Amino acid sequence: MTLYLDDLRVRRLGECRYDSPFSEMLSTKQTSPHYVSEGDRVLLEDTVSMLAEHDLPPGRVPSFEAAGPRRKIYFDPDRVTAGIVTCGGLCPGLNNVIRGLVQELTVHYRVKRILGFRNGLKGLTAEHRNDTVELTFDRVRDIHNVGGTILGSSRGGQDADEMVDSLVMRGVDIMFVIGGDGGMRAATFLSDAIKARGLDIAVVGVPKTIDNDLPFTDQSFGFQSAFARATDFISSVSVEAAASPNGVGIVKLMGRHSGFIASYAALAANGADIVLVPEIPFALGGPDGLLAHVEKHVRAKGFVVIVVAEGAGQDLIEKHGLPQHNGRGTDASGNVKLGNIGEFLKEAINAHLTAVGLAPTMRYLDPSYAIRSIAANAYDAVYCLRLAHAAVHAAMAGRTEVAVARWRRRFVHVPLSLMTSRRNQVDPDGDLWMSVLETTCQPAQFGTAAGREAVRPAAFSA
Amino acid sequence: MTLYLDDLRVRRLGECRYDSPFSEMLSTKQTSPHYVSEGDRVLLEDTVSMLAEHDLPPGRVPSFEAAGPRRKIYFDPDRVTAGIVTCGGLCPGLNNVIRGLVQELTVHYRVKRILGFRNGLKGLTAEHRNDTVELTFDRVRDIHNVGGTILGSSRGGQDADEMVDSLVMRGVDIMFVIGGDGGMRAATFLSDAIKARGLDIAVVGVPKTIDNDLPFTDQSFGFQSAFARATDFISSVSVEAAASPNGVGIVKLMGRHSGFIASYAALAANGADIVLVPEIPFALGGPDGLLAHVEKHVRAKGFVVIVVAEGAGQDLIEKHGLPQHNGRGTDASGNVKLGNIGEFLKEAINAHLTAVGLAPTMRYLDPSYAIRSIAANAYDAVYCLRLAHAAVHAAMAGRTEVAVARWRRRFVHVPLSLMTSRRNQVDPDGDLWMSVLETTCQPAQFGTAAGREAVRPAAFSA
Amino acid sequence: MTLYLDDLRVRRLGECRYDSPFSEMLSTKQTSPHYVSEGDRVLLEDTVSMLAEHDLPPGRVPSFEAAGPRRKIYFDPDRVTAGIVTCGGLCPGLNNVIRGLVQELTVHYRVKRILGFRNGLKGLTAEHRNDTVELTFDRVRDIHNVGGTILGSSRGGQDADEMVDSLVMRGVDIMFVIGGDGGMRAATFLSDAIKARGLDIAVVGVPKTIDNDLPFTDQSFGFQSAFARATDFISSVSVEAAASPNGVGIVKLMGRHSGFIASYAALAANGADIVLVPEIPFALGGPDGLLAHVEKHVRAKGFVVIVVAEGAGQDLIEKHGLPQHNGRGTDASGNVKLGNIGEFLKEAINAHLTAVGLAPTMRYLDPSYAIRSIAANAYDAVYCLRLAHAAVHAAMAGRTEVAVARWRRRFVHVPLSLMTSRRNQVDPDGDLWMSVLETTCQPAQFGTAAGREAVRPAAFSA
Amino acid sequence: MTLYLDDLRVRRLGECRYDSPFSEMLSTKQTSPHYVSEGDRVLLEDTVSMLAEHDLPPGRVPSFEAAGPRRKIYFDPDRVTAGIVTCGGLCPGLNNVIRGLVQELTVHYRVKRILGFRNGLKGLTAEHRNDTVELTFDRVRDIHNVGGTILGSSRGGQDADEMVDSLVMRGVDIMFVIGGDGGMRAATFLSDAIKARGLDIAVVGVPKTIDNDLPFTDQSFGFQSAFARATDFISSVSVEAAASPNGVGIVKLMGRHSGFIASYAALAANGADIVLVPEIPFALGGPDGLLAHVEKHVRAKGFVVIVVAEGAGQDLIEKHGLPQHNGRGTDASGNVKLGNIGEFLKEAINAHLTAVGLAPTMRYLDPSYAIRSIAANAYDAVYCLRLAHAAVHAAMAGRTEVAVARWRRRFVHVPLSLMTSRRNQVDPDGDLWMSVLETTCQPAQFGTAAGREAVRPAAFSA
Repeated sequence: MTLYLDDLRVRRLGECRYDSPFSEMLSTKQTSPHYVSEGDRVLLEDTVSMLAEHDLPPGRVPSFEAAGPRRKIYFDPDRVTAGIVTCGGLCPGLNNVIRGLVQELTVHYRVKRILGFRNGLKGLTAEHRNDTVELTFDRVRDIHNVGGTILGSSRGGQDADEMVDSLVMRGVDIMFVIGGDGGMRAATFLSDAIKARGLDIAVVGVPKTIDNDLPFTDQSFGFQSAFARATDFISSVSVEAAASPNGVGIVKLMGRHSGFIASYAALAANGADIVLVPEIPFALGGPDGLLAHVEKHVRAKGFVVIVVAEGAGQDLIEKHGLPQHNGRGTDASGNVKLGNIGEFLKEAINAHLTAVGLAPTMRYLDPSYAIRSIAANAYDAVYCLRLAHAAVHAAMAGRTEVAVARWRRRFVHVPLSLMTSRRNQVDPDGDLWMSVLETTCQPAQFGTAAGREAVRPAAFSA
Repeated sequence: MTLYLDDLRVRRLGECRYDSPFSEMLSTKQTSPHYVSEGDRVLLEDTVSMLAEHDLPPGRVPSFEAAGPRRKIYFDPDRVTAGIVTCGGLCPGLNNVIRGLVQELTVHYRVKRILGFRNGLKGLTAEHRNDTVELTFDRVRDIHNVGGTILGSSRGGQDADEMVDSLVMRGVDIMFVIGGDGGMRAATFLSDAIKARGLDIAVVGVPKTIDNDLPFTDQSFGFQSAFARATDFISSVSVEAAASPNGVGIVKLMGRHSGFIASYAALAANGADIVLVPEIPFALGGPDGLLAHVEKHVRAKGFVVIVVAEGAGQDLIEKHGLPQHNGRGTDASGNVKLGNIGEFLKEAINAHLTAVGLAPTMRYLDPSYAIRSIAANAYDAVYCLRLAHAAVHAAMAGRTEVAVARWRRRFVHVPLSLMTSRRNQVDPDGDLWMSVLETTCQPAQFGTAAGREAVRPAAFSA
Repeated sequence: MTLYLDDLRVRRLGECRYDSPFSEMLSTKQTSPHYVSEGDRVLLEDTVSMLAEHDLPPGRVPSFEAAGPRRKIYFDPDRVTAGIVTCGGLCPGLNNVIRGLVQELTVHYRVKRILGFRNGLKGLTAEHRNDTVELTFDRVRDIHNVGGTILGSSRGGQDADEMVDSLVMRGVDIMFVIGGDGGMRAATFLSDAIKARGLDIAVVGVPKTIDNDLPFTDQSFGFQSAFARATDFISSVSVEAAASPNGVGIVKLMGRHSGFIASYAALAANGADIVLVPEIPFALGGPDGLLAHVEKHVRAKGFVVIVVAEGAGQDLIEKHGLPQHNGRGTDASGNVKLGNIGEFLKEAINAHLTAVGLAPTMRYLDPSYAIRSIAANAYDAVYCLRLAHAAVHAAMAGRTEVAVARWRRRFVHVPLSLMTSRRNQVDPDGDLWMSVLETTCQPAQFGTAAGREAVRPAAFSA
Repeated sequence: MTLYLDDLRVRRLGECRYDSPFSEMLSTKQTSPHYVSEGDRVLLEDTVSMLAEHDLPPGRVPSFEAAGPRRKIYFDPDRVTAGIVTCGGLCPGLNNVIRGLVQELTVHYRVKRILGFRNGLKGLTAEHRNDTVELTFDRVRDIHNVGGTILGSSRGGQDADEMVDSLVMRGVDIMFVIGGDGGMRAATFLSDAIKARGLDIAVVGVPKTIDNDLPFTDQSFGFQSAFARATDFISSVSVEAAASPNGVGIVKLMGRHSGFIASYAALAANGADIVLVPEIPFALGGPDGLLAHVEKHVRAKGFVVIVVAEGAGQDLIEKHGLPQHNGRGTDASGNVKLGNIGEFLKEAINAHLTAVGLAPTMRYLDPSYAIRSIAANAYDAVYCLRLAHAAVHAAMAGRTEVAVARWRRRFVHVPLSLMTSRRNQVDPDGDLWMSVLETTCQPAQFGTAAGREAVRPAAFSA
């Protein structure tokens, strides 16, 4: 799945004819380690061997358009109406992004009308399209101190044409879609429908994924806040397990397909003995299996602490699980409902340790809602603000079907469709997972020499 | 000050002959977005134009050696003695780095003897060289939950030969120096003295700077923890100023030469009206000066919040300051003692507002010790751990005169001397400062059209 | 269940013959609002009408012996051995109490031998009695920064005579039992067995109950830390519910018999719409029932937030619950296992709202382990320290079969047996519950005019 | 300064003729440990000896009227206008109190008009009386999450008649004054002026003192939040001092006349070696003086941590201080400006240790603004809410010249004039200070056997 320069080009609505409020400020800036000038681009690859492999002149090497203000813009700020919608599950920073969008639009571009659509894409249906919130800077000034989203959110896509009708009827010229996998896909469909009708509406995505599973993004906004908070819960079960005879602490963390939160939180807490992620299959039984390893820990130090991502071990649940652990059907966003790996492990480990005479004390936590709902930490506050500013600059300059992202610490424009073309996952061969193994000292695999290959099919991002 | 590939090469003590405990794990790994293989290197530059400017084949483009474990190592783990020292001012994460070094050395390489030298480089003098702490993993297991450094620290360099004598007398093969500007310089002198004597001792630096002013580093460890905490104090003076008639809130933050903490904290708190950093000179008086701007704010919204880096406006103190605001002499590390810009501004603004009939309520905070002394946050905990692991891998593989750093999210080896060859600063033309201006809406300059050039002489890092 | 003065008298092992280290300091102190002198006592009652009802001279009014150091003590500090054990579920402050006991014993009384028994009363069995931890002040200096208990804990009583054997065999003169309902009962049996054998061993209880359900105690240690932390989780489900179409946020909090944590946390969070506690029965159905009230909230403001104590509504689960919600049997401490009221409500409300066409989004949290395991907050840190000091003073002065407690802000001695003679509960007629009603505006009863009396049988403390 | 029953009686505007919304709820309630019925009263004293000393029948023993709702009220809620003002320095919980007042007035009593006067008593002057904020529950719903006061505050009293004019002109029937020493005094003058004019206006005080120095109050609101936060700064200088050769950490905390914050924070942090409060004089020099003790600590453990209340040691500054340490004049509230004991100690200790060859590293923090400005913690949130409810009940029932307070955990009515008749201070003979001495192991006096009596003149409360 090699990417070429043309795959990374971003669509523009047309020529930029209006002076930007940043014209003068930009007139002398040049590319530096701290700035990418308007004509320049950011490299996709960052090592000598990857560069050599392309064997292309610099101008043809795969690269992203840099984000940021432009000297000329496409939309006339005096006449522009912007729309904002937040989709999918909660993530720290949603309100920061809304606030940043409104700040940049009103304070700098002096845009006068910003509509917040309510409750995710439902807010763009015929039924709800008039139930919008007028967003001013006064309205959003302090919302970043609170978690959640003042606009509400929901899962599930909607008919693209009905959504375009809503934009037309409400006079929206620029639509900001803050959302995850599902939201980015919906934004792509929306863009397609707009293009098909030949409308002059920009669609700009702000990728949101608490799991950090969207590609072309160093770390998604809210991710650091989330794993920091997750760390507290690892500490909780560690304290509980350590104070109980044969204590077994288990925390189930977010991560449907990607174990980033589990991995980072385990590194930060530094008390986890075992980390289980969707990317690395594991066996329960056998001399190298998880249960044997758990037993070994309990015998050696009196307790064990396990961090498990919600998407881990789904194959085991299907094979061994009780009915109540199985996931059933799909949610409104079309995501397969996962089996409950936390409850499954709790029962499996309890049964095993009881059987071998170690009468365990089980301590299980499932804190996801208590993590998703917090306000962004200081780092994410800065990140969301700057990402929102970049999104506004992109839209005002007529970029569309585009997402703003941060790639190796540069803010860049990524074609929307690319954001859903692959998934960011913990690479079993990457250095993050190596750090996890170095810190937990868990085996690279729990009895599944064979199983490992099965899970690695071209899924790793970029 | 262009850098060439040869400038970035790292010195090795000799051939790696011992099998590393990571040999097998590394046997199949290849460069990917998540891993850089042993032969590959990380590009210094990251844009098309910077690449084109070099006009070199990939193999000659400036690049860093990637950090990480090697299949073969230089030192025999069974016989190795490691030393650790922490130098300079406190910074969140020092204990995490110590812990990470000890963990990797003992758990993975099975090194049996690790000496912690006390109170900075003083601990390497003849007088104190025997006052060391034996570091085991049990001893350091929980130290990351506390700020400061269990080894103690101090400012000031020591005689290089005396320090080498200490290493020889204590049988140290690998010396880890965790320190800032001064510590990296001392480590360089130490390396030079070792080389001059033809000794087989590796010196590996772990760069520490709460100000984030060392080069070739995305962000130095502890920096995120520090600016997050700084944000609280901006909130404090904001609350105080907003609740007082004509309230003026001022926070002085760390930043001798570089305004990163001030800039990031102001972006995160999002309540700062004015940010003053060492990189951007400003005038007090005149229609565009700081005082006029402060007055305008107080008249318009009733209060004003100012964030000032300790190194800002030093020229003004010399020119206008009362004797007690002036800095005098240098500290033990040879740093010029700064004038007290916070107290200076407090008095200058108080005088001005009183003069124009606005009878201000001044609220000033100088919280540096309350910031430096906190424990690392979750992000920095992960970062310090991985940085420490990288330092151990570098040392065991015989790299010396080297610092470990993170460059655009890859862990790399940087020649020690480069770490003190330039300074990382807030670029007035970079996008971080642009974000500050967009958020505070303060003018790009306070009445110093001319002054600006004066402060920008080639200081901004690679 | 009226109490007379004699019910409140505390047993003493014998005459105090040794000089206390506090002799001189105490020589001039007299009763004041800040001190109760050795001969004085603290009133049980605090209103004019309650005082009048007794119709007794002051010296016969029910009152407690004040805690604190004595001029003369019973045990010779040079020869004393103290034992410490922690029992039952975790509670913030356990380590603070251990630390405070060790500090006072060693620093002031210069006691030389302190044994920590492991894992609750199990540690006093013949099998485990030799597996003790030697406690010194160096060992415990920093343990208060961490939750849990360094001694470990467990549920369940043990044979009293076997425990006395352990004390005798290990030479223990003073035994501190930190525990809840079960721990206080065990301490009473232990005291009885000691008395029966005519041994000279003091047993002093430090009452521990995160639920705040022990009597004669303003608020039990750890309670404030616990409800403060619980508040965060109410905020979490509030944010989640508010951001979801027809969001229903439910938090299940600790409180088997007493709804103090639920009540206080709801008052502090101030976002709870409904608080359900064990003391106030409620009906699900009917026009005044819980479900109707929930529906009304969702229709009116779009979401609802419910805080439920784990012991609430147990009658409903038995009547309406699915098998998996029912509690079964008893735990090791003999507590009846509760039905899962949180899961029960989640399903019942989901079913009801779905039936009336409101398609809810359910957000349920069960954070108990994440609350119990935190370190004590500043208030509890002070409280635990002073309580521990009081316990040491009591023991050294030869008090036995006694618990230390705080009664209307005075530290007092309470006969051990009284601690388990009644239960502290939220009084439906008291001013705390009135505050809850004033704040949530929920009805005084949910459709159970009759049911209310059923639950109030003389249960309310003191 | 003995108090008699009549001293504790509260003035009423007249007969209560209107039904309260709480009539029904109250009809069956009786005094219990959790409730005080309308006719009953709360005892001032709480020990047998203090009771015996009065030698009075229960009905004549000094006692307070209990706070809480009444069955009949004085004001017609339909026609009542309430005013709110916040005075003096910031304190955690001000916004909570405002919020609680508005909640109870609007939600329960259905009062329709509430005016918030701006910037303290200045807002009641002729110049500012029309600059009020209309307070509704929607306006104040979330203000408790932020520190400070939405109404602004200021120091200094105003002409009582001018303030009464403002109340009359704005139609205010009930005036809530949230303030400290100065605010309570101003409220008393205001009441006097109202009474002199025969007006039917209730004045109810909500005592606010971060120093906890007002009498008849268990602990003032915000105090727990404040000392909890102060603890962080003690930790900061402890970490700094411990990591520095001969480190001396000093924190100056609030406490003009009363060392409660210093004492409680030192107990909670449990790392302070020396606590200095205004109530206990100390000598600098001599063999038992502070400097000798500091030196001893530094020699013994390498560093020392000192917590000093701002009002401590003022006599020493006058005697030994440099001019810049001296306080000058008074502030707008008439408080004498204190000398800077923190800076004074820093210089004195630095000079002494340098002189004896210990070359200290000084670490000094003055974090008051960072403490005063925080939001209330969970405990204070509950306390402020209930205190505000009590204030509303008192006012609606026609009580005037009254403050609401908490006395030994009961909410009570205290005549306004009593709140400024004495001061709550740390009793050198009380058990709090004994706990401080037990924990720090500092001497009861630093070389001032004589000085001690000098400072104890009848100042201790109640």
